[in-house]
Amino acid sequence: MASRADLSTFNCSLARAVDVVGDPWALLVLREVLMGASTFTAFQRALGVARNILSDRLQRLVRHGVLRRAGSDARPSYELTDKGRALTPALVALMQWGDVWESGGKPPVELRDAQGREIAPVVVRGARGRAVAVKDLRFVAGPGADARTRARIATSHGAKARPVE
Amino acid sequence: MASRADLSTFNCSLARAVDVVGDPWALLVLREVLMGASTFTAFQRALGVARNILSDRLQRLVRHGVLRRAGSDARPSYELTDKGRALTPALVALMQWGDVWESGGKPPVELRDAQGREIAPVVVRGARGRAVAVKDLRFVAGPGADARTRARIATSHGAKARPVE
Repeated sequence: MASRADLSTFNCSLARAVDVVGDPWALLVLREVLMGASTFTAFQRALGVARNILSDRLQRLVRHGVLRRAGSDARPSYELTDKGRALTPALVALMQWGDVWESGGKPPVELRDAQGREIAPVVVRGARGRAVAVKDLRFVAGPGADARTRARIATSHGAKARPVE
Repeated sequence: MASRADLSTFNCSLARAVDVVGDPWALLVLREVLMGASTFTAFQRALGVARNILSDRLQRLVRHGVLRRAGSDARPSYELTDKGRALTPALVALMQWGDVWESGGKPPVELRDAQGREIAPVVVRGARGRAVAVKDLRFVAGPGADARTRARIATSHGAKARPVE
C-alpha cells in the first residue's frame, strides 16, 4: 500500500485531502470534536480506539493544522482550527450518505441548526445556486495542473462526451 | 487498529460510511470513475496503485454496491451505482477542501457544470436553503439511536451549551 507521503505528491486535491483525513479514526475524531468532545479521554471513551492509535491520529491532525492543542500540558484539549472546521461539509455529506445507504434511513444521530430545524441534504450546486446532477459534472484543468493532469483531462473529456450514466 | 468490521457496528452513520469508503484508494478509484475511467487498466495507470490492492478495493466497492461490474468477463468495466453516485457531494466537498487547504488555492482540477460554469463551494444548508455555520450545528438523537448514543447526545448537548468556537 502506498504511504500517505505518496498521496500528498499526487497532482490532485482529493488525494491531498485524503492524505490528511482519509483515515477512519481521523474522521471519527473530527466527528467527536464537532459533537463537543475535546480531551484524549473523551475521544478514547467514545471511540474505543487503542491509545497509541488515537495519540498518533491526534498528533497528525495537529501537525496538519486541522486541530489545535489547547488547555494545559497536564490536561491538553483539542479544538478545531479554521482548516478543521472547513471539513464540516465533507463530514456532513458522508454522514448523510451513511444515513441513507448504510443506516437504512434510520439515522442514529441527526443534525439541526441552532433553532432546532432540520439540515438539508448536502448537494453540489452551480455558482447560481442550482443543483448540478452528477452526469453534468465536467473536469477541467485548473491553475495547479501539471502536464500529466492536463493529458488526463484531455482523455477523460473524450470519455465524458458520452456521459457517465 | 480496529478492523473495518468494527466500524460497521458503530451506532454512527459516519463510521458506517467510513467503513465502506474511508480508504484512500477507494476514494481515489471513485474519483477516477467520475472522471470517466472504467477499467482496471485505466485505474491502475492513473493511480499507480499495486494490482492486488486495486483488485481488493474494486471487489470491496462492488460488494458494498458502490460500483457495479459491467462489460465482459474478459474485459470487465466498472460503473457507479446510485449508491456510488450519491457519494459525489462528499467527494466534491473533500476535493474543494484540498483545493483551498492543501493545494494553496491552485486546484489541479476544477469542476464545471454541463455549460462550463463554475461549481460553488459545497456548504451545509438548513431546510430553507440558508447556510448553517458550524458553530450552529446541533446533534440530536435520531430514530436509529441506541441507548449509548442517546446518552452521548445528552452529554454533548451540555458541551454545546457553550458553542464549539
